[in-house]
Amino acid sequence: MSEAFRHRIRVRYNECDPQGVVFNGNYLIYFDVALTALWNDVGGYKKMVDAGMDLVVAEATVRYLAPLRFDDEFDVAIAVERLGETSMSTRYALERGGEPVAEGELRHVFVTTADGAKAPIPEPVRAGLEAYRPPG
Amino acid sequence: MSEAFRHRIRVRYNECDPQGVVFNGNYLIYFDVALTALWNDVGGYKKMVDAGMDLVVAEATVRYLAPLRFDDEFDVAIAVERLGETSMSTRYALERGGEPVAEGELRHVFVTTADGAKAPIPEPVRAGLEAYRPPG
Amino acid sequence: MSEAFRHRIRVRYNECDPQGVVFNGNYLIYFDVALTALWNDVGGYKKMVDAGMDLVVAEATVRYLAPLRFDDEFDVAIAVERLGETSMSTRYALERGGEPVAEGELRHVFVTTADGAKAPIPEPVRAGLEAYRPPG
Amino acid sequence: MSEAFRHRIRVRYNECDPQGVVFNGNYLIYFDVALTALWNDVGGYKKMVDAGMDLVVAEATVRYLAPLRFDDEFDVAIAVERLGETSMSTRYALERGGEPVAEGELRHVFVTTADGAKAPIPEPVRAGLEAYRPPG
Repeated sequence: MSEAFRHRIRVRYNECDPQGVVFNGNYLIYFDVALTALWNDVGGYKKMVDAGMDLVVAEATVRYLAPLRFDDEFDVAIAVERLGETSMSTRYALERGGEPVAEGELRHVFVTTADGAKAPIPEPVRAGLEAYRPPG
Repeated sequence: MSEAFRHRIRVRYNECDPQGVVFNGNYLIYFDVALTALWNDVGGYKKMVDAGMDLVVAEATVRYLAPLRFDDEFDVAIAVERLGETSMSTRYALERGGEPVAEGELRHVFVTTADGAKAPIPEPVRAGLEAYRPPG
Repeated sequence: MSEAFRHRIRVRYNECDPQGVVFNGNYLIYFDVALTALWNDVGGYKKMVDAGMDLVVAEATVRYLAPLRFDDEFDVAIAVERLGETSMSTRYALERGGEPVAEGELRHVFVTTADGAKAPIPEPVRAGLEAYRPPG
Repeated sequence: MSEAFRHRIRVRYNECDPQGVVFNGNYLIYFDVALTALWNDVGGYKKMVDAGMDLVVAEATVRYLAPLRFDDEFDVAIAVERLGETSMSTRYALERGGEPVAEGELRHVFVTTADGAKAPIPEPVRAGLEAYRPPG
């Protein structure tokens, strides 16, 4: 996977369950936190929202490869796989000290904040996200 | 404590931490879930919000008496302790099969949704909440 | 989808995000809560854990069809799609008043609690879960 | 408040509710995350657990002074207020760019992991925590 963007996260105690490992649903929080960091790098989720556009998740997949435990540090690498007319597919790879611990995908749809209708990805946003497309 | 209002909740797996008990912060979710049920009984948190008023939490306290574990069922009893001009104090008692497991208080402030400024409790809301004042 | 098992859930305030809808990761909590109810119906997640077996999630997928909002009530229907030697695949369909709002799948692997190694599904557990296989 | 220990946190999207601000219960997650960082600085929550001791929360209080919003960065300052025979009281002050946004207290009790009985704070742990007592 291209190392287009990486964000480091540390496992919180409340994210772990009685099995002593991170609860499965919390990985989608990690995806979201890392994507927020990418948006900040691109220059603007909030700017886009202020301009009347937002994005919603249409599909999410996570594959769990090895358990994450309390206080573990890991990196989330994100690659922008596909930029369609009104949708975006991103891939996530979680690694702890080089070991893959989880991977997954999100498909987002761009919508207007006014009525939630699908809308084309704004050009400046598309240009910013293109920087995170894997090479090839 | 007056049994003015009771709401039953079942502990979810993700709410428990590696100690095998409910994480301390999640008790405030339980307070909120029970208060929502009381509002539905009164007839209207959403009606109040639609009318331009909301409420925000100003202070929260929880005392943990005995651990709650996965799949435990417990009741949250709520008493409306005080209805001020612009604020409300509520008391919570959590019981599992008659055993007290936690207790606490919330202080809410009523605000306008337009600018978040303190505002008097609307009369119909006050009348509804009065029904949950402990006798005496 | 077979209506082998249904469980009703009500959306909590803290589960909704600034878009006013349930945050995407929280749907996996809903899957888990409904699966816990199915296990209780089968007669025993905790009995299995006490007997030295547990299960872990290997893969999760959610497709979001329509937003869920604060205080919405919805049903989670579960079908046990496949019972392998050491793994189980379950399908989830979320409906609010008959309207599909989300669907997804979980793949679990059965493990020993002692060392987390894959292990065959215990026969009584398999027999219990078979009851939730869709007809066909 | 003494600046004995400070830890920076960034607000996550899923921590905010439909009011657009951090849900009240999530502040206790922030307290916990900052306390974990202090423990790492002291040299060892996990070392203590491995040695057969743990700590549980007996009481928590939060006062909400100003709303925290998505992507806000803030600091949690912690002072160890009191180290009793078997308990510890800590104070928390949350600041965003110098502005106080919340404050609170936690009271923990030290217990044995074997049976959860109260037990004296281990001497090395006490010595480490003393470093975070406010001067005076």
